[in-house]
Amino acid sequence: MTTTTTAPPVSSWIAGQWAAAPVDDEVELRDAATGILVATAGGAPDLAAAVDYARTVGQASLGELPFHRRALILKALAQALTAAKDELYAVSARTGATPRDSMIDIDGGIGVLFTYASKGRRELPNATTIVDGAPESLSRDGSFGGQHLWSRLPGVAFQVNAFNFPVWGMLEKFAPAFLAGVPSIVKPATPTSYLTEAAVRVMADSRLLPEGSLQLVVGQAHGFLDLLDARDAVGFTGSASTGRILRRDDAVTMRGVTLTTEADSLNAAILGPDVEPGSPDFEAFVASVVTEMTAKAGQKCTAIRRVIVPDDRVDAVIDAVRARLEAKVVLGDPRAEGVTMGPLASLEQRREVRERVAELLAGGGEMVVGSLESPEVRRADGTTGPEDAGAFLRPILLRFADADAPVVHALEAFGPVASVIGYSDLVDAVRLANRGDGSLVATVCSTDPDTVAALVAGISPFHGRVLVLDASVARTSTGHGSPVPHLVHGGPGRAGGGTELGGIRSVLHYMRRTALQGSPEVLTRLTGQWRAGAAADTGIHPFRKSLATLRVGDQLASDLREVTLDDIEHFAEFTGDTFYAHMDEEAAAANPFFPGRVAHGYLLLSFAAGLFVDPAPGPVLANYGLENLRFVTPVSPGDRVRVTLTAKQISPRESEDYGEVRWDAVIRNQDDEIVATYDVLTLVAKEG
Amino acid sequence: MTTTTTAPPVSSWIAGQWAAAPVDDEVELRDAATGILVATAGGAPDLAAAVDYARTVGQASLGELPFHRRALILKALAQALTAAKDELYAVSARTGATPRDSMIDIDGGIGVLFTYASKGRRELPNATTIVDGAPESLSRDGSFGGQHLWSRLPGVAFQVNAFNFPVWGMLEKFAPAFLAGVPSIVKPATPTSYLTEAAVRVMADSRLLPEGSLQLVVGQAHGFLDLLDARDAVGFTGSASTGRILRRDDAVTMRGVTLTTEADSLNAAILGPDVEPGSPDFEAFVASVVTEMTAKAGQKCTAIRRVIVPDDRVDAVIDAVRARLEAKVVLGDPRAEGVTMGPLASLEQRREVRERVAELLAGGGEMVVGSLESPEVRRADGTTGPEDAGAFLRPILLRFADADAPVVHALEAFGPVASVIGYSDLVDAVRLANRGDGSLVATVCSTDPDTVAALVAGISPFHGRVLVLDASVARTSTGHGSPVPHLVHGGPGRAGGGTELGGIRSVLHYMRRTALQGSPEVLTRLTGQWRAGAAADTGIHPFRKSLATLRVGDQLASDLREVTLDDIEHFAEFTGDTFYAHMDEEAAAANPFFPGRVAHGYLLLSFAAGLFVDPAPGPVLANYGLENLRFVTPVSPGDRVRVTLTAKQISPRESEDYGEVRWDAVIRNQDDEIVATYDVLTLVAKEG
Repeated sequence: MTTTTTAPPVSSWIAGQWAAAPVDDEVELRDAATGILVATAGGAPDLAAAVDYARTVGQASLGELPFHRRALILKALAQALTAAKDELYAVSARTGATPRDSMIDIDGGIGVLFTYASKGRRELPNATTIVDGAPESLSRDGSFGGQHLWSRLPGVAFQVNAFNFPVWGMLEKFAPAFLAGVPSIVKPATPTSYLTEAAVRVMADSRLLPEGSLQLVVGQAHGFLDLLDARDAVGFTGSASTGRILRRDDAVTMRGVTLTTEADSLNAAILGPDVEPGSPDFEAFVASVVTEMTAKAGQKCTAIRRVIVPDDRVDAVIDAVRARLEAKVVLGDPRAEGVTMGPLASLEQRREVRERVAELLAGGGEMVVGSLESPEVRRADGTTGPEDAGAFLRPILLRFADADAPVVHALEAFGPVASVIGYSDLVDAVRLANRGDGSLVATVCSTDPDTVAALVAGISPFHGRVLVLDASVARTSTGHGSPVPHLVHGGPGRAGGGTELGGIRSVLHYMRRTALQGSPEVLTRLTGQWRAGAAADTGIHPFRKSLATLRVGDQLASDLREVTLDDIEHFAEFTGDTFYAHMDEEAAAANPFFPGRVAHGYLLLSFAAGLFVDPAPGPVLANYGLENLRFVTPVSPGDRVRVTLTAKQISPRESEDYGEVRWDAVIRNQDDEIVATYDVLTLVAKEG
Repeated sequence: MTTTTTAPPVSSWIAGQWAAAPVDDEVELRDAATGILVATAGGAPDLAAAVDYARTVGQASLGELPFHRRALILKALAQALTAAKDELYAVSARTGATPRDSMIDIDGGIGVLFTYASKGRRELPNATTIVDGAPESLSRDGSFGGQHLWSRLPGVAFQVNAFNFPVWGMLEKFAPAFLAGVPSIVKPATPTSYLTEAAVRVMADSRLLPEGSLQLVVGQAHGFLDLLDARDAVGFTGSASTGRILRRDDAVTMRGVTLTTEADSLNAAILGPDVEPGSPDFEAFVASVVTEMTAKAGQKCTAIRRVIVPDDRVDAVIDAVRARLEAKVVLGDPRAEGVTMGPLASLEQRREVRERVAELLAGGGEMVVGSLESPEVRRADGTTGPEDAGAFLRPILLRFADADAPVVHALEAFGPVASVIGYSDLVDAVRLANRGDGSLVATVCSTDPDTVAALVAGISPFHGRVLVLDASVARTSTGHGSPVPHLVHGGPGRAGGGTELGGIRSVLHYMRRTALQGSPEVLTRLTGQWRAGAAADTGIHPFRKSLATLRVGDQLASDLREVTLDDIEHFAEFTGDTFYAHMDEEAAAANPFFPGRVAHGYLLLSFAAGLFVDPAPGPVLANYGLENLRFVTPVSPGDRVRVTLTAKQISPRESEDYGEVRWDAVIRNQDDEIVATYDVLTLVAKEG
C-alpha cells in the first residue's frame, strides 16, 4: 500500500475563520484508487459557535435580502464554481469519481444553484415573505379576512451530508435554504470532506456570501441536535438507522426542530410485460440498469437495486445486462483514459458492500454477473493489473428465484450491486415494488398506456419520484438516478419521508406558514398585496407613477361607458367572433347562462383597457399578461360598464430599471354588479 | 351525589356493525353539571378489524369517487346533522356545554363539512388525483418533462380526538380525510364519547357514507400504532406528552406513518402600547380575553392563556377583565336560562385544573380574579346554590409579577384560567410570546401599523395563526379561539407541529405527492391534463363536441390572419385604448420592449377568438374566464397570427348537465414564434 505520512488537514469554516481540526483523534483520508494519503480530518469543531453565528450574523445578513437578491447571489456562486471546475474535478478524482461521476456531483450541484437562481426570480416575489393561496373572506361584509403567509425560520439549517456526493449533496440543501433566507451549517461526511472543503473555499473566496450564510463543520458533530430547537431545521442524508435516531431525538419530538431525512432506498425498475427483448424500449431499460449500477460505482441512494421483470423475461434481462456491462464498463483509476467506472470511495466502503452482498447471497440471492474478488483494473498509467490499495469492486448482478425473499426488499448494498426478481402480473409487480416500504424513485418501462397507468398508480403512494421510460425519451431523459432540482427528491417510509429539492417546494421547507387574520387594511400591509376592502388612493392616475412613487392601493376608478348593440355587432364583424350568444337573440336566450344577446368578454376587456389606459409615454412600459379572469355577470346591449384598477403588488427587478406591477381589475355595470375580475400584469419603470 | 345504576353503554361502529364495549373494565360517564350517570364506556374495540375494513372496503368505496362526489356527500352529511341539531344539543348539554358552547362544537363541526363541501367543488378537479404546480420541462426539445401529482394514501386515517370537542373534533379531521379519499377511524376521548357516538349515528343512519369510509372506536386504543404503517395517517389531538410518545413510536420513526399532532399551547394575546384603556380597541381586547376564559369553560386548546400587556397597563387590564367577568358571566347548569358558562367536562377535569392552578400559584402567580372553591351556581330549575356533584369552577385570572416565571410559559391549566404578564417594549413582547415555544394562535391588538408589523413579524415563526384585533373587526372577527376551516389550524413546537384544517392544504395531508417524469404523451395520460408536445387530434372542430365525446388533446389549429395597421388604428379608436405603443411609431420604438408600433394584446386575443370560435349553437355554452395569459412576442403591422386551441382538462360537474373545459391556447406568428399563451375556460354541455 502506497502511503505518505503527511497530508493537509481538512478545515472547518466557522464564523468566517478557517480552522483545521485538532490533530488528535485524526482520520486518514486516502485516494480511493491508489490509497495515497490525501488529507486528514478529525476532532470536534465548535458547533455552538457556528450555530450562534448563523442565528445572529447569518440571519441578519442573509435574512434581510429579498428573494431576488439571494437568487442572484446563487447564480454568481454557480459561476464562481464553474470557473473552478478543473480544480474541483482533480480533487474529485481522488474520491474515485470518473469524469462522468464528477459531472454528476459537481456540474449537478452547480446546476442546482442555477435552477434555484432562476426559479427564485421567476417564481418568487422580490420580498422576504411569500403569500400562500388565495385571500379568504371570513365575514359577510368583507371587514374580516384571512391570508396565509410564509416567513423564514429564525434559526439555522443544519445539513448533514453523505460521503457519495461531496458537492451536489451540499449544494442541493444549501440552495433552497439560502433562497429561503436561512443560514446553512454544512456537515459533510468525513471520508470525502476534503472535496466539500474545496468547493466551500471557492464560494468563500468569491466574497459573494453574506456573512454567516454558510459555514462548514468537518469532523465529529455528536450532539449537534442538543443545540437546536423550533427555530431550526435539519436536513439529513445518510443511513435509515441514523435517520431513525434523529427522528426520535428530543430536539425533534419535544423542541420542534424541523427535520427532513433522506435515507436507504431499495429503488425499483419495473419492466412492463409488453416490452419485447431486443426492442428499443428493452434496450433503454437495460442501459438504465447498467448506468445505475456503474455511475458513482453504484454509490447513489437513487440507484436501481431491484430489477423487477416478468417471470419469463428474467433470463433475457440478465443476459442483456451482462452483455452491456461487458461491452461498456472499463474499471480503473478515474484518471486513466477510457475508464468508465471507478473504485468505491474507500476500502472501508468496499468491505461493507462485500458484507452486504454476502448477506444477500445468504438470503437467497445467486450471483449471475460479477464477483467479490479484487478485480484487474486499468491503472492511471494505462496498464492493467491488480490494484490492491484501491477500493475496486466489479459490478454485481444477483438473481432471486424467490421474489419475496425479505433481504432483497430490505438490504441495500451501497455499491455496484442490483438484484433481478420476477413478477407474475401487474398486481404482483406493484406489490413487489411497494415491498421496498417507501423508495426515492422507481422506473416503469412500458409503452402500453394501461400498463403504465396501472403501475404508476399502484406505486405512486410509495415513491417520491416515478420515471416512465421508453425509447422515445431514452436519449433526453435525465435518468432514473438523477434527482433534478425542479422535482421533489425524497420518498416516504424507509426512504426517510423527506422532501428535498422540488423547486420552490423545498424553499418552503425552511419557512413557516402562518394564517393571518384581520381587516383588509391590516392584511394588505402585512402581505404587501392589496386586498379588496382596504383603503385605495385615487389621487392621480397610477399609470403616471413610476415604482419610485407608486404604492400598493393606488387606484384608478373610471367613468361608465355604454355597450351598445352596434358595438357588439361591430366587434363581431371586426374580429370574426360571431358566436351566437352575441348575434342571435333567440338562440342566446336559449343558452342557460344568458338573458339574450350579450357582449363578448373580450370586448369588455378591450373597453376596460380603453377606460383605464393613459395614452402618453410614461412609466408604464407594457402589459405583459393577465391572470385569473372570471366573467361573472353578462352584459346586455345598453348596459354601461366601468373599471376599477388598483395597484395590488409591486416587484422591482434587481438587475433591471423596471419591475412588475400587478393590478387588481374589476369591471362593474351600472347597477354596481361585478361583471368581471382579473389581474393585469404590467412592466413599470423604476424612475421617471 | 345523584346517581343511577344503569345507563346505556357507548358503542363502537366497526365494519358497519354497532357493538357496545364489553361490560368489564367499565367507566361511568356522568352529566358534568348534575353528576347523573349518562352512559358507560370501556373495553377494547377490535381495532384490527376496523383498520382492515378501512383499508379494503373503505378504500375501494370511497377512493373510487371523484372529489366532487365526495364533496357533495359532505354537504349532505352536514344537512343531516343540521336536521338533528336539537337532539345533539340536548346530549351536548350533558358534557357541560352551554348553548353557545354547543354551537362552537356542533354548528362549528357542521360548518367544517359545509366549507370542505364547497372548497372541494370549487378548488379541486372532479378527479381522484391533484396536479401540483406547473409542468417542468426537462429537455431542450420538450420530449421529456416532469409533473407532480398528489394521490391519496392507500391506508386509513386514524383520528384520536380530545374530550372538549366531541363533534367538531371529529368532523374537522374527518372532512379533509374524506375529501382526500382516505377512510377515517375516529377514536373519541372516552369522557364525552357518547356525544360523538350520537353524531356518528346521525351520519350512519343517513346512509350517505360510502361503506367503510367512517368507523368509530370507543374505549381503549392502546397499541393502535402497531397496526399502522406507511399507508396510513394519524391525526392526534391531546396532551403534548402523549404527542411526544406517538412521535417517538416505531410506527412513525421506522414505518413511516404520517403523523400530525395538535397539543398543549400557551396561546398569547398581546396588547399594543398604543391602545388606551377604555378605547374601543381596548374593550375588544378585554372582551376577547373574557370570551376565551369562559367559552367551553376555557377547555379549548386555542384559549388565551397568557395576556401580555405593557407594564403600565397590567392593572387596567386586570380591572377591566374582572369587571367584564362580573357583568357577563353566569355560572350554572347549561340547561338553565341565562347561564353563560357551564361546568368543566368532569370532576376529574376540575381536579386537574385545580392542581395546575396550584402549580401556577406556586410558580409565582397571584390570583387576582376568581377562586378555587366550589362556586354557587344557577341550577337547572333556576335556583342558585352549591352544586357539589357538578364540575363547576369560577373563571380565574392570575398575575405574574415576574413575566419570565417559567411556569406561566409552560403550564397549561385546561380550564377558565389565564395569566397576565407585563412587557417593557415590543422586542420584549415578542420574546415573551415566543417563550411559549410554539403556539396555535396569538392575538395582536393594536391600530398602529408599525406595532402590528413588528409584533406579527416577530411572532409569526412560532405561531400557526395570528389574529390582528382592533375595534374595526371586533364585531365580525371569527375570534381568537375559533379555528376556521379556511385557515391552517396547528402550530409549531410545543403546539405539536401539525397542520389541521386550512382548506385544501389539510386534504393534502392525507395524500402523497409524487414527481412523475416521462414523455408529454405519458404525462398527459397520467395527469389528465394535456401537455404541449403530446399528440393532438385535429379531426373535427372541438367546439362541436360535448363532454360525451370531447377528449383531452382534441385540437383546433386555425389559419393565419394578417394584423394590419388599419386594424390597430381601428381597434384603438373603437375601444379608446390609444396607448402610444399602438399609435406613435417613434415613441413606440423608444420603448425597450417594442420594435415600433405594435398590436394591442386585447386585439390579438379578440382576433384569436374570431379564429377559433364556432358560431352556431352547440355544446360550448360560455367562455367564463381566462388564465395565465402571457404576451411573449409583439406583433407588428403586417404580421400574421394563428391560434392553436387544445382541450387541456375536462371536469364534468356532478350536479349539472355541463362541466368545465380548460383549453390550452397558443397564438403564433407567421414565423412560428409564440406570440401569446393562455388558458381559455369554457362551460360545455355533457350531451348534444
